[in-house]
Amino acid sequence: MLKNKITELFNIDYPIVQAPMAGGVATTKLVAEVSNCGGLGTMGAGYMTPEQTREQIREIKQLTSHFFGINLFVPNEFTVSQDEIILADQILQPIRKQLDIPPSNGMEIPKYKNVLETFNQQIKIVIEEKVPVCSFTFGIPSREVIDVLKKNDIITIGTATTVREAIEIEKNGLDMIVVQGSEAGGHRGNFMNGCQESLVGLMSLIPQVVDNVNIPVIAAGGIMDGRGLMASLCLGAKGVQMGTAILTSSESGAHQVYKEAVLNAKEDQTVLTRSFSGKWARGIKNKFINEMHKEEATLPEFPVQNTLTQPIRKAAASQNNQEFLSLWSGQSPRLAKNQTVDTLIKNIISQANKIINNN
Amino acid sequence: MLKNKITELFNIDYPIVQAPMAGGVATTKLVAEVSNCGGLGTMGAGYMTPEQTREQIREIKQLTSHFFGINLFVPNEFTVSQDEIILADQILQPIRKQLDIPPSNGMEIPKYKNVLETFNQQIKIVIEEKVPVCSFTFGIPSREVIDVLKKNDIITIGTATTVREAIEIEKNGLDMIVVQGSEAGGHRGNFMNGCQESLVGLMSLIPQVVDNVNIPVIAAGGIMDGRGLMASLCLGAKGVQMGTAILTSSESGAHQVYKEAVLNAKEDQTVLTRSFSGKWARGIKNKFINEMHKEEATLPEFPVQNTLTQPIRKAAASQNNQEFLSLWSGQSPRLAKNQTVDTLIKNIISQANKIINNN
Repeated sequence: MLKNKITELFNIDYPIVQAPMAGGVATTKLVAEVSNCGGLGTMGAGYMTPEQTREQIREIKQLTSHFFGINLFVPNEFTVSQDEIILADQILQPIRKQLDIPPSNGMEIPKYKNVLETFNQQIKIVIEEKVPVCSFTFGIPSREVIDVLKKNDIITIGTATTVREAIEIEKNGLDMIVVQGSEAGGHRGNFMNGCQESLVGLMSLIPQVVDNVNIPVIAAGGIMDGRGLMASLCLGAKGVQMGTAILTSSESGAHQVYKEAVLNAKEDQTVLTRSFSGKWARGIKNKFINEMHKEEATLPEFPVQNTLTQPIRKAAASQNNQEFLSLWSGQSPRLAKNQTVDTLIKNIISQANKIINNN
Repeated sequence: MLKNKITELFNIDYPIVQAPMAGGVATTKLVAEVSNCGGLGTMGAGYMTPEQTREQIREIKQLTSHFFGINLFVPNEFTVSQDEIILADQILQPIRKQLDIPPSNGMEIPKYKNVLETFNQQIKIVIEEKVPVCSFTFGIPSREVIDVLKKNDIITIGTATTVREAIEIEKNGLDMIVVQGSEAGGHRGNFMNGCQESLVGLMSLIPQVVDNVNIPVIAAGGIMDGRGLMASLCLGAKGVQMGTAILTSSESGAHQVYKEAVLNAKEDQTVLTRSFSGKWARGIKNKFINEMHKEEATLPEFPVQNTLTQPIRKAAASQNNQEFLSLWSGQSPRLAKNQTVDTLIKNIISQANKIINNN
């Protein structure tokens, strides 16, 4: 059960994929370490410039000779008026005050055409640098992008939160699907369904997806150990993608305060919020989420809100203040441990084998 | 793996418990059939009078010599003013109009002391009739109730939606815990956590609960087949409780229109609503839920709202109108089939054995 089509295609020992965790958690060191320990490391390039993207790919190549992946955000068109930005900025003012940071002045707001241009350059770099695996979140890339990646023998992966989205990914010719359950931490990958409709638990989501597609399915959301791995395989997935479990590892780039917040959190303390980025995401409840809650519906779209909150998250990090950081976490924080990636993966596999042998 | 402490204690062949499904779905015939086919049937007595409770227990005993269970709603104190009732009743008027039924007149609104009195009488009947298993939803019964059941060798089960609730159930001396994942259809069993906080997927909930209690855990929510059973066992549960999967069976008492709604539904079409009963519950979206949505927060508490909507649900049933029925369903309706209980259970076990042998 632990050897299957995805371990074969990824050329890895164990059907474990590291979730991309864009924004500093998945450092080049972490990505390479996961691949060196028998899983598939994935760099989260969603927030990177083309230059950073190329640089980090090259760094990872220096650190591992194994397969690794890159994750890109599929650009979604957005429009935002100057008034909306001014209002959203005013909403953030009381929070800046608490952190003792100055009002924002002439912040550069991203434009769709630039986001798209960055994405296209990243695709070019992925091909030039021959990254073995390229996964996508927030939608399906254009036919041309998929075709050129496939022509270059790059394995493509889409992210789905419902059966409908999974079917659409297969129809567009991608090679695999990450199915994201409602348990998952971080951003929701829904792109056809609304966020609420997309909150389907993995116990329900995995079997309903595998019954409706032919390409391999990788399960994501709340999976932390050998029990979660084996459960996902029983439900029909070929592998698992793990975020929270790896985020607290010694090699992860997560801020110490963030790691501790996850290590101390309980299963009933995460919530969905769009206050940090403009897209719904699951994280541990803190002051920022609570104070922004009533404004949540009216905030600008991703990535505009993300840009507006950047100085706040940066200041919170440098002040070691978890109350204003985005503490993305899945629903299993009680299972998180501070251990090396090597120990984590070894424990997962030994626990999985114990379950297999008990049958 | 399929034989364990719960199959032993329940004296059953397979670790499969039928969810109580109060309100006409779990007929005496269905309950007995599940027990006769090697699982544990459970009668949902939450809405029954003491007389009905005794009658149905006796009917089941006529139909099976195997163990079966009874599920009771733990009464929660509630107060409701005359003004609230009038307002709630007005909100329902446009819906009554659509169904062509007269305005309610002098409906008898339940009082807490009567609800409690019924519950206490039900406990007495459970003991007198020697029902082997007694499970509870919406809270933990008093110490005296637990003690008297245990003194009479009745196995007691509590329902938890979070680790905190599971720990509390164990602390109060109950014998087992049903953990209800966010995937589950019907009423949420949360009693210490709020509804939103209690929406934890089984992939996260099962392992975190089993790590924190010593009594056996039964998983509920979205489990429909051998894959779900095996996944639950891998995560540390000793058995599964299945509702939606059994609701569409030939022997179930669900209205034909209700069965068809489930058989045609998709995983992204269920929502949480408190419009039917005053307690949050998961069901398939329909006109009633949509039209009541904006009033949802202000409706009276359970069981008052339940009483107010009863004539509506009754009329909808007799008019075969699914738009005003409570179509409780978990998040896996794509896996529902119209088959006999015997076939369902045989298929679950053969699929589970196939998974075991593939390992």
